[in-house]
Amino acid sequence: MTLKEKLRSYNIILASGSPRRKQFLTDLGLDFTVHPANINETFPVELQGKDIALYLAKQKANVFNNLKENDLIITCDTVVWLENTSLEKPFNEKEATEMLRKLSGKTHQVISAVCIRSVAKQELFYDITEVTFNNLSEQDIHYYITNFKPFDKAGAYGIQEWIGLIGIEKINGSYTNVVGIPMEKLYKQLNLF
Amino acid sequence: MTLKEKLRSYNIILASGSPRRKQFLTDLGLDFTVHPANINETFPVELQGKDIALYLAKQKANVFNNLKENDLIITCDTVVWLENTSLEKPFNEKEATEMLRKLSGKTHQVISAVCIRSVAKQELFYDITEVTFNNLSEQDIHYYITNFKPFDKAGAYGIQEWIGLIGIEKINGSYTNVVGIPMEKLYKQLNLF
Repeated sequence: MTLKEKLRSYNIILASGSPRRKQFLTDLGLDFTVHPANINETFPVELQGKDIALYLAKQKANVFNNLKENDLIITCDTVVWLENTSLEKPFNEKEATEMLRKLSGKTHQVISAVCIRSVAKQELFYDITEVTFNNLSEQDIHYYITNFKPFDKAGAYGIQEWIGLIGIEKINGSYTNVVGIPMEKLYKQLNLF
Repeated sequence: MTLKEKLRSYNIILASGSPRRKQFLTDLGLDFTVHPANINETFPVELQGKDIALYLAKQKANVFNNLKENDLIITCDTVVWLENTSLEKPFNEKEATEMLRKLSGKTHQVISAVCIRSVAKQELFYDITEVTFNNLSEQDIHYYITNFKPFDKAGAYGIQEWIGLIGIEKINGSYTNVVGIPMEKLYKQLNLF
């Protein structure tokens, strides 16, 4: 039995507006609808790394407090973690430039957390991938920000875009986790619902 | 100056029929034409791992023995290397099934070699990425082979397809290298032409 058949009694809702996450769930072969969970993405200052992603994924799941019998909500949060700081979505070109300068020539962590929630059950999990950038030139940073406007992306980059091709030397961990969902773990967890 | 501007005097030819490689060069922002180098993909039995990929990438470049002044040829070869054996393109479902059973639950190496050749110069290089599969079920293997027919892919899988989402736990190295070209290295090398 395929995952789609196993979950056929569920009304699957992806609570994220990310087109990359939507594509992954489609590629997984699932039928689902998209209802972004719009929360204020703030978190207690004492949280670090994975605990930020887990906290925000759970906060997004809490938006859906009137679940119907057959609803299955999937929420996600991705944190770009460098030198004990979370690089969030940049407000403007200046902030995006500063973020890419910080990431240049270093290894950082990308942590994506997922919450799957039904009336009966909730599963919360995460994955960590190390990402190593080469030394980005000022010209490459400027070209990327001008042409790709990465203002909707934590850390000001998308691994699947031009900067990921020319600037990422290697990763250690799950690739899909860097894009925004740890798909191998998601598949295992969904199979348990 | 962008890479496209630097290479504007060249007539770039991608000598590969792979739609994934074509997409990567397009994403890099290059203008190019596609002329697959059709060679008999055999190699001396004493070659191992990276030397197989390097040998075949070079053989493919040798097909173009009448280069014009402004031609720039890019050839590639990808080897899936497991326990001192190269897993090539499977002939049929039975062979594809056997390959995926071998890869299941283990870490293998994917080695992509590239040859860039102009009249004046030739650069040959490679990258190695470790890929770790989880324990694939017989059902997952059957579903993938039936629906995706991976007969054009070394090792009988594409990381960018369904099996890559549900079956690959992690990679260590370049992602694009697993798909078929080490893009970060290619970008650096092309900048030297």
